[in-house]
Amino acid sequence: MKILSLYAQSNSLKFSLYEMKDEELIVDGEFERIGLDASFYTIRLDGEKIVQEIEINSLDDTIDILIDKLISLDVIKSVDDIAGIGHRVIQGRDKFTESVIVNDDVLAKLDEIDESTPINSPTNSLVIKKCRESMPLIPNVVVFDTAFNQTMDEETYLYPVPYKWYKEYGVRKFGFHGTSHRCNANTMKDIYGREDFRLISCHIGNTGSVAAIKDMKCVDTSMGFTDVSGIMMGTKSGDIDPSIIPYVMEKEGKNIGEILNDLNKNSGLLGLSEYSSDMRDINAKCDEGDEKALLARKKYVRRVVDYIAQYYVLLGGADALVFSAGVGENSVPVRREICEKLACLGVKIDLDKNNITREQVKISTEDSSIDVYVLHVDEQLLIARDTLNIIKNR
Amino acid sequence: MKILSLYAQSNSLKFSLYEMKDEELIVDGEFERIGLDASFYTIRLDGEKIVQEIEINSLDDTIDILIDKLISLDVIKSVDDIAGIGHRVIQGRDKFTESVIVNDDVLAKLDEIDESTPINSPTNSLVIKKCRESMPLIPNVVVFDTAFNQTMDEETYLYPVPYKWYKEYGVRKFGFHGTSHRCNANTMKDIYGREDFRLISCHIGNTGSVAAIKDMKCVDTSMGFTDVSGIMMGTKSGDIDPSIIPYVMEKEGKNIGEILNDLNKNSGLLGLSEYSSDMRDINAKCDEGDEKALLARKKYVRRVVDYIAQYYVLLGGADALVFSAGVGENSVPVRREICEKLACLGVKIDLDKNNITREQVKISTEDSSIDVYVLHVDEQLLIARDTLNIIKNR
Repeated sequence: MKILSLYAQSNSLKFSLYEMKDEELIVDGEFERIGLDASFYTIRLDGEKIVQEIEINSLDDTIDILIDKLISLDVIKSVDDIAGIGHRVIQGRDKFTESVIVNDDVLAKLDEIDESTPINSPTNSLVIKKCRESMPLIPNVVVFDTAFNQTMDEETYLYPVPYKWYKEYGVRKFGFHGTSHRCNANTMKDIYGREDFRLISCHIGNTGSVAAIKDMKCVDTSMGFTDVSGIMMGTKSGDIDPSIIPYVMEKEGKNIGEILNDLNKNSGLLGLSEYSSDMRDINAKCDEGDEKALLARKKYVRRVVDYIAQYYVLLGGADALVFSAGVGENSVPVRREICEKLACLGVKIDLDKNNITREQVKISTEDSSIDVYVLHVDEQLLIARDTLNIIKNR
Repeated sequence: MKILSLYAQSNSLKFSLYEMKDEELIVDGEFERIGLDASFYTIRLDGEKIVQEIEINSLDDTIDILIDKLISLDVIKSVDDIAGIGHRVIQGRDKFTESVIVNDDVLAKLDEIDESTPINSPTNSLVIKKCRESMPLIPNVVVFDTAFNQTMDEETYLYPVPYKWYKEYGVRKFGFHGTSHRCNANTMKDIYGREDFRLISCHIGNTGSVAAIKDMKCVDTSMGFTDVSGIMMGTKSGDIDPSIIPYVMEKEGKNIGEILNDLNKNSGLLGLSEYSSDMRDINAKCDEGDEKALLARKKYVRRVVDYIAQYYVLLGGADALVFSAGVGENSVPVRREICEKLACLGVKIDLDKNNITREQVKISTEDSSIDVYVLHVDEQLLIARDTLNIIKNR
């Protein structure tokens, strides 16, 4: 049974086709610069990578091109070979607490969310509608980045701002990366063979968040109303003093949108290092003793540790601490520095075991108070799994 | 030796006159609504309170009226009875790391700070200049809310935003309430008889901050570039997702200044409870089971605990946790709820000992991992003490 996972953003579409019998990735790739000049696609198949410039005018077109490609590459014979399509949607607000099969009601709710949410875009419903039109017999499933976080309580998701902002405009913490944090919780459930544990899940990559999970439910998470908040990221600031915004607006003669753009795209590792948003580059510079790179990495580590500390107390202690995503899976020094700062909580890691990338491994010592794991999360596969589960149980 | 402590804000002046031999408060009071209609003063002397409406056009006038009052009330015979005047100044940026005696150079720096800092106002230098003119023989000392916090390291005081914002506009964490946190550290030094301890100082009142102090030096503090950030306060939000600002600007058709005003004056306890910014009112409503008051108090407690947790890990553990200021000294349930949430760190308090207000007392049990104290901080007296020390050592 083949499942197609899609992740559409304004100008790009990521796709992965899986054979779900053994969760084997058949083909994946990206369409980029959609609707812009020099648009192109990258397709990875059988260990080869095809990169091709091609005119792509819209996300609608992209779906047609993708299906044609899958057929011409002989990956599928026709669209009938696809059992279901899973769509990653960032924002489900409080309207969706789990993945759902698409129907008219779901689409209407998605449109409503698009209208009322700053970080969503109508791209998701566009792509879903196009898939329904072009492939009317194939079920579509939506998997929300926010769904897993909807178990947070009121005291957690409300901001200490005028209550009207919540009641009338829906200002609250949503949190994102829910699918990844849920996956980490599921992996730990498999490892422990039980559900009653307290987990601090660090899904840290170019964007990132830390989540507090108890008995498989999200208790709190570092991202909030949008994905700019929480820990420091590759180009995003995370939490800052809100007064900085009007101050810099005046200094630079910028409007609020331009400053928010700076907080989203020119801050974080890139902002402090003035060099790169990519932890691999930062680590390389740190090895050379570059002061700004060292500063950027220290600050990054510090903000993650701040959230781990908060969540340790919130959960009344922790059984497991998990690292996943680009930085979490690959950055040996970042994991080491984070864990060293947690020594006062009894965290101890084995430096040899920590010296790995992209492996699922326990890096804590036997006498560590908290089990520390590195887990691999494949978000596209998670979407495919949810899609399969839902269409099977229809 | 008599010392006068002054705390000027845009439309008010708080004063306290001390006999420093035994740190006895002789007289204190406030001038309010300066430059507005219905301006008035309150003077407390010998257990009596005098409240009087009086036209007060400016802070300059206020100084004249104050001195006349002190003489007519027979508290001083002439200004020559005042050995020194201490001025509380909120913002010293990174230019002042301790209290200083006023000279032309200091005044020039203060003017420079006023021009470049959002939360300062020229009121401070106005009042200082007036005091120098009217009482040229009396030394003036400036005590900064930010000075104690200047030992924070770069990794702590920098925000993960474009580095240019720091280098060119001075955007960084300053932290406030430094004088109060320093006082808490000094009191704990007297209690312990040594300086090498790790202290988490919660100075929480209508505004408030939590500070991490090691070996008598500030390592981190919750307030940042301005005093709107950090923990939730009476009317201030503390940290929020910056994206909320443009979103609500659009929803309410407000400009950035109006939203910042909401975050400063209509948020915090007042915003969530929609009832009061005063923890005494909130506690009374909580006793009646009012849901919104309970929500507001829970969130308040949570945000303080979040910072205590961060600082516990930052300090590598803690020897003492201290509560001071309005809420810290008086709110029995807030202290209890905070400490209950810290049980996983080994904090234990004696509920009977906690059942006090405005007393200096150790409320933790003998087997608590961290000593918990309630301390009384009198900021006006701290200003007088600094002033005395500096003029004595000239």
